[in-house]
Amino acid sequence: MCQLLGMNCNVPTDIVFSFEGFRQRGGLTDHHSDGWGIAFFEGDGCRMFLDHQPSALSPLADLVHKYPIKSRNVVAHIRKATQGEVSLANTHPFKRELWGRYWLFAHNGNLTDLPPMASSRFQPVGTTDSEYAFCWLMDQLGLRYPSKPPLDELHATMAALAAELAKHGTFNFLLSDGTALFARCATDLHYIIRQAPFAMAHLSDADVSVDFARYTQPSDHVAVIATQPLTDNENWIRIAQGELLRFEDGVVHRLTNVAPAEPVRIHAA
Amino acid sequence: MCQLLGMNCNVPTDIVFSFEGFRQRGGLTDHHSDGWGIAFFEGDGCRMFLDHQPSALSPLADLVHKYPIKSRNVVAHIRKATQGEVSLANTHPFKRELWGRYWLFAHNGNLTDLPPMASSRFQPVGTTDSEYAFCWLMDQLGLRYPSKPPLDELHATMAALAAELAKHGTFNFLLSDGTALFARCATDLHYIIRQAPFAMAHLSDADVSVDFARYTQPSDHVAVIATQPLTDNENWIRIAQGELLRFEDGVVHRLTNVAPAEPVRIHAA
Repeated sequence: MCQLLGMNCNVPTDIVFSFEGFRQRGGLTDHHSDGWGIAFFEGDGCRMFLDHQPSALSPLADLVHKYPIKSRNVVAHIRKATQGEVSLANTHPFKRELWGRYWLFAHNGNLTDLPPMASSRFQPVGTTDSEYAFCWLMDQLGLRYPSKPPLDELHATMAALAAELAKHGTFNFLLSDGTALFARCATDLHYIIRQAPFAMAHLSDADVSVDFARYTQPSDHVAVIATQPLTDNENWIRIAQGELLRFEDGVVHRLTNVAPAEPVRIHAA
Repeated sequence: MCQLLGMNCNVPTDIVFSFEGFRQRGGLTDHHSDGWGIAFFEGDGCRMFLDHQPSALSPLADLVHKYPIKSRNVVAHIRKATQGEVSLANTHPFKRELWGRYWLFAHNGNLTDLPPMASSRFQPVGTTDSEYAFCWLMDQLGLRYPSKPPLDELHATMAALAAELAKHGTFNFLLSDGTALFARCATDLHYIIRQAPFAMAHLSDADVSVDFARYTQPSDHVAVIATQPLTDNENWIRIAQGELLRFEDGVVHRLTNVAPAEPVRIHAA
């Protein structure tokens, strides 16, 4: 299956170190070689790099490495195709606009027999289960809320909608609108929050170290989320199976009640 | 104001030569230095590069120059800000999904007192008149057609909707869903169709020539659309003020009746 990488911080931070390890898994240290993508929020705007070439060999990945972009929310994905041909239209992350904000989505897993769309507002362009699931989520949210609800309520609703989709297969995902980053674990998803005192970190996939104390301020909070831990000398936390976490300003939020205040009604077609 | 560049072809073609001249206008040979963007359709997918740095100096523009991407539909824009701050969210082209296809839009001009949105389906993320106008167009098309209509009908409807917006100011634009490219002229928009016998072309903005005969097949049709002609030794055609042209497979289509079969009803809020 695929690999996910996300970052959520309280200050714009570059993801060069984590991306350097992550990209090796796209054809070099691992077999996820059916394309890759990374998207950075910058303010309300969003910069995306998508490539259907393996990330370990991609000239676009070289650019991302050489041209550090600072962002508070990043979503990246390396693809091992399960459904849908290898093409740009099937490359994650996917992007849509809802409530006047861009939303980015990347999925690791495989879903089958997904429920019908309740409206035609969001339609997949490619042929993956992942983009369909993303459009279904956006459609359900759009039908339920005319504008963006408070984040606690959105979190609870999202968890319920995600649980509905997870009945159809493996549903690890990252989703962000540039203010919060949602991370759902079905099988494998880990995170670390780097904060003061910052220390040295060493990549698992390349012999590269960085001393974060040299590049950070004491008030920085940087959450990094990845399918598998990216470093071999830090304590990554495994997200519980079935849990949807929300990261804001580099701080993790859990649902106090796993279910939303009232059961989520699934809008039917 | 801004500068537009578009390309529509019957075979995937790289835009390196035209882009090389065009990017000079972003801060070097002209003053459009408030960001730039270029988007390439590849199949149904779409690759976008956006930067709020001047295109003449941008490392991303260097990448586009060095890493020739072949595409049948390209939309590019260099910005001279009129409304909305210089930011990534305000950088053209803008992208939305409608009818399961991505749509790209770039605008040159200035619009004021735009009509209200009839629904909340498409909402601008940034603060430009341009993105608002694009969302208004997509909204009106989505309300009128549940799926993509035949291109002749879409062309006529689009011309009527564009004329409605043009009452509010200057509305030169490029719009593409990856199959056709629409080009509307309010004040300045030119095109050329390169086809056999191919000849030598020389840029206006840099001392660079290319012999297209060396890089093309006799059956190739390549339409290039730009605010101002990009070469100084070819015959560019000026699009008539108020006209909306449609390019498909490198061939230009005009509306036989400028008005659609029945008057376009504007959906009101």
